[in-house]
Amino acid sequence: MATITFIGLGNMGGPMASNLLKADHDVCVFDLNPAAVKELTGQGARSADSLQSAVKGSDVVISMLPASKHVKSVYLGEDGLVHHMAKNTLVIDSSTIDADTAKAVGSALADAGMRFIDAPVSGGVGGAKAGTLTFIVGGEHADFAAAQPILSAMGQNIFHAGGVGAGQIAKICNNMLLSVLMVGTSEALQMAIDNGLDPAVASDIMLQSSGCNWTLQKYNPCPGVMEGVPSSNGYQGGFMVDLMKKDLGLAMDTAKHSGSATPMGALAQSLYTLHSGQGNGKRDFSSIFELFNHTKED
Amino acid sequence: MATITFIGLGNMGGPMASNLLKADHDVCVFDLNPAAVKELTGQGARSADSLQSAVKGSDVVISMLPASKHVKSVYLGEDGLVHHMAKNTLVIDSSTIDADTAKAVGSALADAGMRFIDAPVSGGVGGAKAGTLTFIVGGEHADFAAAQPILSAMGQNIFHAGGVGAGQIAKICNNMLLSVLMVGTSEALQMAIDNGLDPAVASDIMLQSSGCNWTLQKYNPCPGVMEGVPSSNGYQGGFMVDLMKKDLGLAMDTAKHSGSATPMGALAQSLYTLHSGQGNGKRDFSSIFELFNHTKED
Amino acid sequence: MATITFIGLGNMGGPMASNLLKADHDVCVFDLNPAAVKELTGQGARSADSLQSAVKGSDVVISMLPASKHVKSVYLGEDGLVHHMAKNTLVIDSSTIDADTAKAVGSALADAGMRFIDAPVSGGVGGAKAGTLTFIVGGEHADFAAAQPILSAMGQNIFHAGGVGAGQIAKICNNMLLSVLMVGTSEALQMAIDNGLDPAVASDIMLQSSGCNWTLQKYNPCPGVMEGVPSSNGYQGGFMVDLMKKDLGLAMDTAKHSGSATPMGALAQSLYTLHSGQGNGKRDFSSIFELFNHTKED
Amino acid sequence: MATITFIGLGNMGGPMASNLLKADHDVCVFDLNPAAVKELTGQGARSADSLQSAVKGSDVVISMLPASKHVKSVYLGEDGLVHHMAKNTLVIDSSTIDADTAKAVGSALADAGMRFIDAPVSGGVGGAKAGTLTFIVGGEHADFAAAQPILSAMGQNIFHAGGVGAGQIAKICNNMLLSVLMVGTSEALQMAIDNGLDPAVASDIMLQSSGCNWTLQKYNPCPGVMEGVPSSNGYQGGFMVDLMKKDLGLAMDTAKHSGSATPMGALAQSLYTLHSGQGNGKRDFSSIFELFNHTKED
Repeated sequence: MATITFIGLGNMGGPMASNLLKADHDVCVFDLNPAAVKELTGQGARSADSLQSAVKGSDVVISMLPASKHVKSVYLGEDGLVHHMAKNTLVIDSSTIDADTAKAVGSALADAGMRFIDAPVSGGVGGAKAGTLTFIVGGEHADFAAAQPILSAMGQNIFHAGGVGAGQIAKICNNMLLSVLMVGTSEALQMAIDNGLDPAVASDIMLQSSGCNWTLQKYNPCPGVMEGVPSSNGYQGGFMVDLMKKDLGLAMDTAKHSGSATPMGALAQSLYTLHSGQGNGKRDFSSIFELFNHTKED
Repeated sequence: MATITFIGLGNMGGPMASNLLKADHDVCVFDLNPAAVKELTGQGARSADSLQSAVKGSDVVISMLPASKHVKSVYLGEDGLVHHMAKNTLVIDSSTIDADTAKAVGSALADAGMRFIDAPVSGGVGGAKAGTLTFIVGGEHADFAAAQPILSAMGQNIFHAGGVGAGQIAKICNNMLLSVLMVGTSEALQMAIDNGLDPAVASDIMLQSSGCNWTLQKYNPCPGVMEGVPSSNGYQGGFMVDLMKKDLGLAMDTAKHSGSATPMGALAQSLYTLHSGQGNGKRDFSSIFELFNHTKED
Repeated sequence: MATITFIGLGNMGGPMASNLLKADHDVCVFDLNPAAVKELTGQGARSADSLQSAVKGSDVVISMLPASKHVKSVYLGEDGLVHHMAKNTLVIDSSTIDADTAKAVGSALADAGMRFIDAPVSGGVGGAKAGTLTFIVGGEHADFAAAQPILSAMGQNIFHAGGVGAGQIAKICNNMLLSVLMVGTSEALQMAIDNGLDPAVASDIMLQSSGCNWTLQKYNPCPGVMEGVPSSNGYQGGFMVDLMKKDLGLAMDTAKHSGSATPMGALAQSLYTLHSGQGNGKRDFSSIFELFNHTKED
Repeated sequence: MATITFIGLGNMGGPMASNLLKADHDVCVFDLNPAAVKELTGQGARSADSLQSAVKGSDVVISMLPASKHVKSVYLGEDGLVHHMAKNTLVIDSSTIDADTAKAVGSALADAGMRFIDAPVSGGVGGAKAGTLTFIVGGEHADFAAAQPILSAMGQNIFHAGGVGAGQIAKICNNMLLSVLMVGTSEALQMAIDNGLDPAVASDIMLQSSGCNWTLQKYNPCPGVMEGVPSSNGYQGGFMVDLMKKDLGLAMDTAKHSGSATPMGALAQSLYTLHSGQGNGKRDFSSIFELFNHTKED
C-alpha cells in the first residue's frame, strides 16, 4: 500500500481520507482545524505539526482545498511543498479550481521533478462518505494509471479527461450543463402543471422521451414526484445553490478565457444568482423550481 | 380488426397508414394528393372521392394534418365530418396542434356523440416507417384503452398524459425541453473543445455524469462523435430546424396562455430563429452546434 | 367641428372622449357601463341605447377596447357596425391589438366603403387626462390627414407609421424595446450599487453617456433617485407589470408571425412573467428593479 | 502649466498626449514603439530612454495601457514607478481595467505618498483626436479637482463617480447597458422591418417615444437610416465588436465579484461572442444588427 499525505479535512476531505485508511493505506493528515485532525488520527491516521513535515516520506500527496489561492499557496507559496516533497512524488489535487491554476501548479511541480494530476470530484458529501465519488482527471497517462488504485479507494467512476487541467475543464462543462438541465426541466415541468398535467405523469413521459435527462432520472425538482431527493425534503441537503453559483462562475471564466459563447450557461448563472439573492443560497440547487412555481403567490 | 379512415398521407401519415394495413386493418385513405393515395391503394387500402364518403362505415378516424386550421376545417368546417361520422366513432388526431384547438374539436365531437383523443407523435419519419413512434395521448381512459391496439400497430411507446388536450401539452413541454438539452449540450461540448478536450471524451464523461441527457445518449450534435446520426452526415435528415421552430412557437403560445415563465425555452426559440434566419431551416436541429463552433471562421 | 361616436369609456377612453368635448366636438358615447356613460353625458355628450344607433349620423367613429376580440365583434360581429355606419365614415381604433386583426377589420370596412386607421396610444391614464397622448397611426395618408385634427384634441405626438396595421406594429416594437431598456437599466444600476456607487451619481453618468435611455431620462427605476415617478412612490400607479406582460405577449406573437429573432425581448418577457408570478402584477413595471435588488434579503 | 509624463502612445494615448501639448503643457512621453514616440516629439514633446527617467521632475503621470497586468507592472512591478515618482505626484490611469487592480495600485501609491485616480474614457479614437472624450473618474475630491484642468485638455465631460475604482465600475456599468441598448434596438428595428415598416420611420417613432435611447439618437445600427455612422459605412470604424466583448468580460467579472444578477448583460455578452466567432470581431459593434437581419439569406 502507498504512503499518502492528505491535506484538507473538510466535509469532503475528511471522509475521503477515512476511506483511504479503510483501504489500509498509510495516511498522514494535515488540517488547520485540530478537531478534524483528531477525528482522523482516531481512525488510525498519522498527523504532523506542519505541512512541510507532513509530506516527509510520502509517495503520494492529495489535497482537497476550498479555492485556487489555497492550492497555489500550499504548493508554490512561501516555503511551499514544492521545496519539500521528494522527487517523483505523485500529487493529486481534488479541489475544484480554475484550469489555469491547475496547469501553473502542475508545470511548477514538474519542473521540480514531481508528478501532478488535477482530479476534481462530483458526488457530494454522500459520495465522499460512501466512497462512490466520480473523479475527473487531467494529467499524463502514466500518472493517471498510478493514481487509479488510490482514487478507487475513494470513488467509483474515474475518468481521464486529458492533460493537466482537463479534469477541471470537463467538470466545469458538466456542471454548467447540469445547471441548464435543472432549469430547463423545472420550467418545462411547471408549464405542464400550469396546463393541468400531473407532474409525475409529465415527468414519466419526458423521462421516456427525448426530454430525458439526469434531473428526471435521479433528481426530480418537483416536490412529491420522487422519493429521497431534496425536492421532497424541503430542498434541504444535496448540492447548495451557492456551490452551483460558484461553479457557474468558474464556467463563465472558462468561457471568457476561450472565447466560447454559452448563452444557456450564462442565463442559468443569472437565474441562480437571482435565486440566491432572494435568500435561497443555502438550499439545494433543485429549489430553482420554485422560481417558476408561482402557485404559492396566486 | 377495425375499419379505419386515415386522413392525411404526408411523410408521416403515409407510412403510418401503411403500418395499419400490415396489421390487417381495413383502411380507407384520403388525401388531396392523388399520388399519395395511389401509393396506399397499391398496398391494399380503399380510397374515396370525398372526405365525407371516406368516413362512411368506419369505427375509427385518424387524422395527420399540418396545422390547427386544417384539423378544425376537416372536422368542424363547412360540411365537416362532425356531420358525417357515425355515433361512437373513435376519432384520433395525431397532428401536432395547440391544445385549445384539440379541446374545441374534442368537445364539439363529444356533443355530437363521438369520441375524441389527441395523440401527437414523436419519432420522426424514421419512426413512422419502422412503426416505432411514440404516441402521447390526451383523452378519457376508455377512449385511450380503445385506441391502444390501433396505435400499437404504428408505435412503440404509448403514453396517457391526461384529458383531451393533455397529449399536445405533454408533447410540447417535451420538445421545448429537448431544444434546451440540444443547445445546452452543444455549448458545453464546444466549450470543452475550445479548451483542448476531445469531444468524444467530454461527451463520454458528461454522459456518465450529471450532465447525462438524451442528446448525448442518442443524438450527439458534434460531428464524428457518434455514428449514424445527422451530425455525422452533414446534418441531413433527422428533425428539421424549422420544425423545432414551429414546436417552440407552440410552446411559447402555451406558456403565454398559462402565464408560465420559460426563460430557457424562450432563449432556445430565439437561437433557433437566428439559426434558421442564417439559412439552416431545412437542416437537422442538431446543426445548432455550428452556431457555437467558430473554429471554421478562425 | 366633427360629429364623433366614441365607443369604450374605460380609464383611457373616458378622459379621451372628455377631451373631444372640450374641443367642442359633437360626441355620442357608448359603453356597457351606465356610470361611465353618465359621467360623459354630464359633460355634454350625447348617448344612445345601442351601438347601432350610436353611430347614426357620425362622420367619425373612435373605439378604445380591451382586446382584439372586442374590436372584431363590435365592427364585424353579428349585426356589427359595418352594417350600420355611413359610407366614408372615418373609423379610428385606438385599442392595442394584434396587427392582423387591425388589417382584417380595416379591409372589411374598406370593402363596405368606410375608411379605417389603427391608432394605438402610449402615455397612460395621465396622458389621456392631460390630452398629451402619443398616437401611432397606421393607414392611408388621406385618412391619417383627416384624423389629425381629431387626434390632436386628445394627444400631442401623432406619428404615421405606415399602412393599416403599422400603428400596432410600431407600438409593439417600441414597448418591447422599452421593456429591454427598463430591465437593462435596472440591472446596470443595481450592479453599480452593489459595487459601492451612489445610484443617483451612476444614473447621472449613464444619462450623459452612451447608456442614455428613456428610463434614465423620465422613469428611473431606483427608489429615491427621481421625484414624482413610481419608484419613489412604492411603485404605485404608472404602467402595470401585467400590461407590459400583455404587450410583450403581443410582441412575441408578432415576432413569431414574421420569423423575427428577439432574444432580448423574449428574456424581458420571461423576467416580467417571473416578476408577475411573484405577486407584482399590479405594481408599476419599473418594480422589476426589485428583482435585482437583493439587499433586502441580505 | 503642468509638467506631465504620458505613458502609452497607442491609438488613444497618442492623440491624448497631442492635445496636452496643444494646451501648452510640458509633456514627456514614453512608449516601447519608437515611431509613436517620434510622432509626439515631432509635436514638441520630450522623451526619455526609460520609464524611470521619464517620470523625473513630473507633477503628473498619465497612463493609457491595454490591460490590468500592464498597469500593475508599470507602477508596482520590478523597479516600478512607485519607487521613482516624487511624493505628491498625481497619477491618472486612463486604461480600462478591473476596479480591484485600480484599487490595489491606488493604495500602494498612496502608501508611498502619491495621489491616484482611475479615469477610464469613452468616446473612442474620434473623441481622443477631437479632445471630446468623456472621463469617468474615481478618487478623492481633492485629486479629482486637481486633475480636472488637465483632463479638460483632452475631454469634454468629466464625471466624478466616487472613490478610487469607482471610475472603472461606472464605465463598465455604462458599457454593459450600452450593449443591451444596441442589441435591443437592433432586434426591435428588424422586427419592424420584417413587418413592413420603414426603418427610418420606426426609428423616428421610437426615438420620440419611450423606446428612446443613445443608439437611436447617435448611432443607429440599421444601414441607411443615419448618415456618418458605421452602419452607413459597412460597419467600419467606430467601436470594435472585440472591444465591446472585452468590456462585457470585465462587466461579467464585476457582476460575479459583487454577486449581481445581470441577465441582459450576460445575454448581450453571449450574442457578441457568437457574432465575433462568426468573423465580425474587427467590425463596429453596431454590426450586431446583421445577426437579426436575415433578409440576405432569404
